[in-house]
Amino acid sequence: MYYIGIDVGGTNIKAGLVDEEGAIVYRAQTPTLATRPGEEIGADIGRLAKKVAEESGTALSEIHSIGIGMPGACSDETGMVLYTANINISGFPLREAVQKEIPLPVHLGNDANCAALGEYYMLDEKVSDMVFITLGTGVGGGLVLNGKLYTGFNGIAGEVGHIMLRHDGEKCGCGRRGCWEAYASVTALIRQTRAFAEANPDSAVAKSCGADFSELSGKTAFALAKEGDADAQQIVDAWIRYVADGVTDMINIFQPEILLVGGAISREGDTLLVPLRERVEAEMYKSCVPQTEIRIASLGNDAGLIGAAFLGK
Amino acid sequence: MYYIGIDVGGTNIKAGLVDEEGAIVYRAQTPTLATRPGEEIGADIGRLAKKVAEESGTALSEIHSIGIGMPGACSDETGMVLYTANINISGFPLREAVQKEIPLPVHLGNDANCAALGEYYMLDEKVSDMVFITLGTGVGGGLVLNGKLYTGFNGIAGEVGHIMLRHDGEKCGCGRRGCWEAYASVTALIRQTRAFAEANPDSAVAKSCGADFSELSGKTAFALAKEGDADAQQIVDAWIRYVADGVTDMINIFQPEILLVGGAISREGDTLLVPLRERVEAEMYKSCVPQTEIRIASLGNDAGLIGAAFLGK
Repeated sequence: MYYIGIDVGGTNIKAGLVDEEGAIVYRAQTPTLATRPGEEIGADIGRLAKKVAEESGTALSEIHSIGIGMPGACSDETGMVLYTANINISGFPLREAVQKEIPLPVHLGNDANCAALGEYYMLDEKVSDMVFITLGTGVGGGLVLNGKLYTGFNGIAGEVGHIMLRHDGEKCGCGRRGCWEAYASVTALIRQTRAFAEANPDSAVAKSCGADFSELSGKTAFALAKEGDADAQQIVDAWIRYVADGVTDMINIFQPEILLVGGAISREGDTLLVPLRERVEAEMYKSCVPQTEIRIASLGNDAGLIGAAFLGK
Repeated sequence: MYYIGIDVGGTNIKAGLVDEEGAIVYRAQTPTLATRPGEEIGADIGRLAKKVAEESGTALSEIHSIGIGMPGACSDETGMVLYTANINISGFPLREAVQKEIPLPVHLGNDANCAALGEYYMLDEKVSDMVFITLGTGVGGGLVLNGKLYTGFNGIAGEVGHIMLRHDGEKCGCGRRGCWEAYASVTALIRQTRAFAEANPDSAVAKSCGADFSELSGKTAFALAKEGDADAQQIVDAWIRYVADGVTDMINIFQPEILLVGGAISREGDTLLVPLRERVEAEMYKSCVPQTEIRIASLGNDAGLIGAAFLGK
């Protein structure tokens, strides 16, 4: 059997035909046009799925189901999108709209949860418990517990970026203060890099940011640190420590076999992973038992699509 | 069928014969004598279970299994106690020692996990996800997810008291700084009450603590607050806010149908529950979905014994 995965982003809707092994054998995409009514977005998702089937020469009878990963909260039970921040379909019955175009089972999930599921299915070994975190604009996460995606009774569990690390700390987008996301997201790293550059305009860090900070990104401090710049190294170290604070919380709560770190910044690899492991090892709750292995996620951008495809598996 | 539950504490080992409905139909106990070798403690647990069966007139064939709740980490897979802080049986094969005395299946679990399981089985309604926290000497917890006790791959998950709330905050017993336990345990409330009394020796709070703080307990501030003392009310409010910080984290992560607050201090009832709910409601990650209900746990001291009994259920 095949599975169709749909990854709905603010800019594009990406679709892929996924085989039993998790290989994406055919791809297509269409613009999201995020301010359109839900009916139109749903119809476009349905048509995109149909296009993937037709152009790849796959009969509908060979396709097990369609899975849709949304940036927000969904109910797979009711087929409703409950809430999305950036796309105009909160409270919309998305499954129904998609099925008007293509008569297949449709499953809905949160995009970070789908990425977790994709990474989980593609692990080399079989494990029962895995925590996935993604460091990007925010800090997202997905929980695979006892071999199953855990979504809570209302479908929105796993908002691990919104645990408090710093009482009365930085204001977070969720309304709370001091959330993990407000310190350990790439957005936060950029803010931390910029704050240093503003306070130290003659530093190499400031020069790397370019005029009006036009060249500042999450890579700025990492790149300079690799060249041996001590200031940049300090910025990176402090940020990794924020990441480690939340990762330690995750391990103390879940004790998973594997904790995966995803998001584009995870391409920094050992530069991120080695100090992260060191710090977590020093902070975590100890017992004489096997310990969680912290790894970099392996699928990159495809994780969400593969995981969405496997929502119905 | 019946189940034997064993609750191992630092002072006493309590046993109970539990029926299918969770009623404790016979009880017995023996001193722990916590510094003895594991062989002796294990043999005493086995003999206590035998005594419960014999004195209650229950044939071994009517007893499904024995469950043992330990203050520490256990592996139900291997039958080993992995780690206990206050009893001398870390690394000891407890199941084997117990079965030398009584030929029944023996299961091991952490005491807070057992309490969670006991509360879960005794809920009036069926739910899939429940988080239990217990406020006492420390802050403990137990997780029932998708209808099953969640213990992680190594058996020590659910150490929810050791998530960070205050960066570089109070030193915690686990070695980390700023853990939830270091602020929201009853130990912490007592410390907070004492700090106020020391700084304000003429206050009603200080007077309530007695000479040399001999009458200071977790109830001191609650009792005075109920009489209208503004200082005590402030101590209570600040402590409940610490409790709420971690409860909010739990809800953002797990989105359980029910979050239960246990421990002796939960007998304060609405005095604790009403402001706790208010604060969590203001802080939690919001979506237009059903929300977690926060309740006071109902079983009190028996939760651990009933849950231990049902470990094998």
